Amino acid sequence: MTGIIDITSPGATGSTGTAGITVLAGGVGGARFVRGLRELLSSGSGGATPITVIANTGDDMWLTGLRVCPDLDSLMYTLGGANDEVRGWGRAGETERVSAELTAYGVGWPWFTLGDLDLSTHIARTSMLRDGLTLTEATARIAERWQPGVTLLPATDDEVETHVEIVDPETGESRPIHFEEWWVRHRAQVPAVRFINRGIERARATDAAASAIADAEVVLLAPSNPVVSIGTIVALPGIAEALRSTAAPVVGVSPIIGGSAVRGMADACLRAIGVETSALAVGEHYGARSAGGIIDGWLVGDEDVASVPHLSAAGIASAAAPLWMTDVAATAAMADAALALASRVAR
Amino acid sequence: MTGIIDITSPGATGSTGTAGITVLAGGVGGARFVRGLRELLSSGSGGATPITVIANTGDDMWLTGLRVCPDLDSLMYTLGGANDEVRGWGRAGETERVSAELTAYGVGWPWFTLGDLDLSTHIARTSMLRDGLTLTEATARIAERWQPGVTLLPATDDEVETHVEIVDPETGESRPIHFEEWWVRHRAQVPAVRFINRGIERARATDAAASAIADAEVVLLAPSNPVVSIGTIVALPGIAEALRSTAAPVVGVSPIIGGSAVRGMADACLRAIGVETSALAVGEHYGARSAGGIIDGWLVGDEDVASVPHLSAAGIASAAAPLWMTDVAATAAMADAALALASRVAR
Repeated sequence: MTGIIDITSPGATGSTGTAGITVLAGGVGGARFVRGLRELLSSGSGGATPITVIANTGDDMWLTGLRVCPDLDSLMYTLGGANDEVRGWGRAGETERVSAELTAYGVGWPWFTLGDLDLSTHIARTSMLRDGLTLTEATARIAERWQPGVTLLPATDDEVETHVEIVDPETGESRPIHFEEWWVRHRAQVPAVRFINRGIERARATDAAASAIADAEVVLLAPSNPVVSIGTIVALPGIAEALRSTAAPVVGVSPIIGGSAVRGMADACLRAIGVETSALAVGEHYGARSAGGIIDGWLVGDEDVASVPHLSAAGIASAAAPLWMTDVAATAAMADAALALASRVAR
Repeated sequence: MTGIIDITSPGATGSTGTAGITVLAGGVGGARFVRGLRELLSSGSGGATPITVIANTGDDMWLTGLRVCPDLDSLMYTLGGANDEVRGWGRAGETERVSAELTAYGVGWPWFTLGDLDLSTHIARTSMLRDGLTLTEATARIAERWQPGVTLLPATDDEVETHVEIVDPETGESRPIHFEEWWVRHRAQVPAVRFINRGIERARATDAAASAIADAEVVLLAPSNPVVSIGTIVALPGIAEALRSTAAPVVGVSPIIGGSAVRGMADACLRAIGVETSALAVGEHYGARSAGGIIDGWLVGDEDVASVPHLSAAGIASAAAPLWMTDVAATAAMADAALALASRVAR
């Protein structure tokens, strides 16, 4: 690795933390980014720097009595080497026999794929939750099988589900639907009026997640959806506070390259919150920690190098690098660039 | 059909009921018997006589957070034509992908087969129960898909699970295990000290089940396990009372032929309650309604014709017939013999 941070020496970033690197992440894109980061850190000669991933749980849902956590599972399968690389999500070698049966019974969402292998994760998780385990505990238990090489933490143990207020094309009335219905069934093509973090008034981040930010050497925001992945995590009471107060540098990686969302449909989310689909606008949306925001640094794509001086003017250190996660090596290089930026902004 | 009861004429048996024939049944054996009865009644020229099946729910369990009802499902699959005829239970064309995954997660009972197709039934049922439906309602909803041609009723909507007190071969101490663990895992080879209907003190039969007995033209006890199938149904508050007070004749079909249980392991159950494995002993165990028991008639196998006078002496009308359910036609003939006996004892 070529990173500026000496990851073999705790405290090299000026942090007193010993918890390594903490990443806030959504599902598929976040998983790819973390896989690159893990590759980068494991290829160093100085031993492993621990990685903690705080996962978005806003996409979670109860479906036919089972607790489904899409982002946690995407992270777990991808980091455990069990994901379907061709399709980009879910388990490799998947089948859908149970799902077809459920449709025949008229239960569940016929437009939502529940693979047979994937289903076992939901059954195992639900069983543990019904037995009284927290989602954090159930996640740790389930992850034992996959050995993701990172500590995987749900951002919260409370049920906070993202709903999307849409204007029903048939009735003309606005009504909320679950994020997954909007995302998967409607492909985000029905305009979102706003996003609702249902249940958030009774929720807070887990102590483990807040501590992972407080004690980190570096905090990274993966190039995940700024609204319904990173935004949902940050909205949880306890997260923004931790991001603002941690001694670690906080660096984000832009999910927007050259004015386009790398992983489709983020633009539909940004539109709903009035943020332009650009690396600059998203960086400014997160905002400089020095000005009450949540980031110190913002890594943009080479295509967006022109935004760097504008970001600097907004108090956000910035650098440009190739941000296409075409393979693990390219992603590792990108993670390296993010760590280099973190080193630059470390206080 | 050659039955003596004119099933086209309600009230021909002397009953005022119009609910047709009600059968108390366990799983696999009960399902086969009901299939024969359905065949018999549908082949008549006078239109269909309704059949109501009251199913044992003592084998039910929560397994990895899912409500599994083995006997209801055996009845539903067999009567719906979806059962595995070769194996004798479960769904045809079954696979076990999810089950293998659950084992990899270390949840569930690795010795208990949960087929993928079967699993969808448990998921659908559990989802409905979690939504607040009763088991009776969920069963009706699920059965819509299978069109079993009978009304399928759980004996109770309450959770009463059969546990078996065994003497642990390793510790020498007695402890209760779930019936399915004893039956499937231990193949009933560990001696049962006694059976416990866990939860029965808070349970009762559904009104639908009690009414199906009260209003029937004929009540039949299928040749199911006398202890853990029929016995478990009868133990539910409301069932024995209904059997004793119904105007309908109550006729049982012996599951013991020539001193052997037709469907293995009933002898292990009978031993635990101190009843000999013979058609005579089981008939006497049920007892004559005229003497506080639950049956008027008891159909035994041709092999057990010598028991007929002994049963008569005990106040139980009896007849001998071929009781091997080798195919649907043989089973229909056997059901016909049971109805003929019912006609003879009708008051």
